[in-house]
Amino acid sequence: MSTHRVVIIGSGFGGLFAARALARADVEVTLIARTGHHLFQPLLYQVATGILSEGEIAPTTREILRSQSNARVLLGLVEDIDPQRRLVRWRTHNRLETTPYDSLIVAAGAGQSYFGNDRFATFAPGMKTIDDALELRARIFGAFELAELETDPARIAQLLTFIVVGAGPTGVEMAGQIRELASKTLRHEFRSIDPSTARVILVDGADHPLPVFGEKLGERTQRTLEGLGVEVRANTIVTDVDEASVTVRGAGGVEETIPSACKVWAAGVQGSPLGRVLAERAGAPLDRSGRVVVDEGLTVPGHPEIFVIGDLMSVPGVPGVAQGAIQSARFAADVIAARVQGRPPRRTRFSYHDKGSMATIARFNAVVSMGRVSFGGFPAWFAWCFLHLLYIVGFKARINTLLHWLISFASTRRSERTTTNQQMVGRLALERLGAGSSGRLIAGEE
Amino acid sequence: MSTHRVVIIGSGFGGLFAARALARADVEVTLIARTGHHLFQPLLYQVATGILSEGEIAPTTREILRSQSNARVLLGLVEDIDPQRRLVRWRTHNRLETTPYDSLIVAAGAGQSYFGNDRFATFAPGMKTIDDALELRARIFGAFELAELETDPARIAQLLTFIVVGAGPTGVEMAGQIRELASKTLRHEFRSIDPSTARVILVDGADHPLPVFGEKLGERTQRTLEGLGVEVRANTIVTDVDEASVTVRGAGGVEETIPSACKVWAAGVQGSPLGRVLAERAGAPLDRSGRVVVDEGLTVPGHPEIFVIGDLMSVPGVPGVAQGAIQSARFAADVIAARVQGRPPRRTRFSYHDKGSMATIARFNAVVSMGRVSFGGFPAWFAWCFLHLLYIVGFKARINTLLHWLISFASTRRSERTTTNQQMVGRLALERLGAGSSGRLIAGEE
Repeated sequence: MSTHRVVIIGSGFGGLFAARALARADVEVTLIARTGHHLFQPLLYQVATGILSEGEIAPTTREILRSQSNARVLLGLVEDIDPQRRLVRWRTHNRLETTPYDSLIVAAGAGQSYFGNDRFATFAPGMKTIDDALELRARIFGAFELAELETDPARIAQLLTFIVVGAGPTGVEMAGQIRELASKTLRHEFRSIDPSTARVILVDGADHPLPVFGEKLGERTQRTLEGLGVEVRANTIVTDVDEASVTVRGAGGVEETIPSACKVWAAGVQGSPLGRVLAERAGAPLDRSGRVVVDEGLTVPGHPEIFVIGDLMSVPGVPGVAQGAIQSARFAADVIAARVQGRPPRRTRFSYHDKGSMATIARFNAVVSMGRVSFGGFPAWFAWCFLHLLYIVGFKARINTLLHWLISFASTRRSERTTTNQQMVGRLALERLGAGSSGRLIAGEE
Repeated sequence: MSTHRVVIIGSGFGGLFAARALARADVEVTLIARTGHHLFQPLLYQVATGILSEGEIAPTTREILRSQSNARVLLGLVEDIDPQRRLVRWRTHNRLETTPYDSLIVAAGAGQSYFGNDRFATFAPGMKTIDDALELRARIFGAFELAELETDPARIAQLLTFIVVGAGPTGVEMAGQIRELASKTLRHEFRSIDPSTARVILVDGADHPLPVFGEKLGERTQRTLEGLGVEVRANTIVTDVDEASVTVRGAGGVEETIPSACKVWAAGVQGSPLGRVLAERAGAPLDRSGRVVVDEGLTVPGHPEIFVIGDLMSVPGVPGVAQGAIQSARFAADVIAARVQGRPPRRTRFSYHDKGSMATIARFNAVVSMGRVSFGGFPAWFAWCFLHLLYIVGFKARINTLLHWLISFASTRRSERTTTNQQMVGRLALERLGAGSSGRLIAGEE
């Protein structure tokens, strides 16, 4: 009798925690992922704003799983799933591979959604990957660098206007951090511009920021952000984004085009393309965001051996956060282990235990919502720090992160501001607008 | 009377230390640099091999100089110098700028030299910039990842053969570190391959590694490297490099082509193109490596207001190391300050105070050469750590680095292994050879 083969797709919270939860099961785990690292997505904004290095929030998956002898990690992109023959087809660097499974856990996550306007992506990167964060790091710090070189007040204003689209936790955190960079970190560093004059505009279609936290915390968040100098535009939607500006439409229906060089897109998610593969190949129903509507056992209807977990699953009441992924991963792992052992699973029906939501707004200021309890300010910030440290994988990463936090919180300095020339290409690309608006070309001018 | 204007080109050890040394002089300092950071080049190999993050060895120049009110930092590429009109012409992101100077300090450094074979650069990146280090990080760790996916023993051997060209300090450090990664860090992480079987080949035309350290230390270094499992090929020159291999010719004149996916070029320097500009515009003599042969006051003959310092200057007996750059920067700054104050300079003739050379070979093992004293092993390693920590700019960077070192030295783990998709492009590019050698194409195969 051969061992039960579990294939896991993805190395985020869903994939990694599923693999770990199967450590003592009599199964062979093959984890296939596009990147070699496990990304701690909730801290990605700290990489973008120079607080943490990419290594601190993205330890190597292979290293995390090295002592788990029943697991192997393979680097590749899954392109197809064959539910009839129970095969996963995936692409390595130089060929297509086929890997059979007995149980399949699809934890491929979600990407940024531009709501049908994918051309916005070049001008307003999302916040989903290490590449996104480093690109935004280069654009944010780069905008100040470029402004220092300008003399035209309109160009300087354009470079010092940062627009964050979407006021969920990531958008709120980015807006707060960019404002803090401008008013504190970069103080005294420039000679021509005054970084503290930078405008940070947070745009969202809802009534207030952090809509899922409820009205009370949302309004509190708005006041805190405004106190920091962030312009919060509620009830406002984005109708266009290009190199030079963002066009918004407020509640009154009036459109406004705001010149802005650096834009961040933190609105909307779109399930991984593997959702569509499961729809076509296994008849899985999808929700509006392309996520798979699973049954109560987190499997694809008619396919009890295919689990969809994490951000790619659509379960009413389960938010697309780390806890949803971790809990669904552990549920799926238990069901598989139970089947292999011939015992009943601990639970047959997935239920989400809401441990609460939290978001940092600024240094020493956060909001926490736990069931009926909700609070903000320093206690919330402290709770945020503590819980995030706890969930960072690996002791060393935890110590490193703690140290970088202490430095950043104690001094407003940022230790990770380095950008590469590769990212500078992105940064200078956004500067092509300079040629148009100033009438000058890059080459052949003196 | 207007203030004396000093323009400094470059933000390495030369440029940055010159700016700092002018902090109390009655001058206006304008530092123009291509990158926003000050690179601590001696630790670049630790970024490439996952010990340190890029932020730890590349703090922002602007931040370092923020409280120096007579200095400003501008991001741009200097393209021309007009010694007659005393102007520097430089390119920003969108235009050409002209900046006048009364004194000019050219500290533009040196790049990698491929001795006329620039096509090698794509296949064997140098070790001069943050981009180089991150690219090599992706290639080194990537080679093991790709080998794990292969079944063909020849392909696996090719991916697990690392060739380092040039056995100066950087080459020796890279070779030692890659071997250590292979035998210690990556142990137990792979399921198909055994990383410890990786070959690391160090090639140099000299009789032994670290030729400038003399025969005794060189031979000691060779024994230590060989003890680690590095294959040292002395008296060997590289005749060709392509995607799939390196061709070498040993003392016997026999050529050998060694299949290798990941190559590092740590041989030869070439002065910045600004050396040639000074030759054309100011008649400055250049040496074989394109460095400017300055007079005893470190100025261009006939131009006492143009100083060339650091790696771009050619002074007999002064090696291209941080100490040479720092000492020449302080010398030039003193001469300028003296002129402005109308006092005689402390010295009119530059003399290099050799504080000694050091290189790490492996964990707990280094070599130090200080005048007639030379030693190796743990004491040398300890001295290396101490001195490098001392010279890292900034308290926070020092603490961070110390911590990362403690982690790395205590556990052989590497906390900074993250690569981006941008770098993955480079990594997969080196994999195009896979299509040829295995007869398989990337697309349309099953």
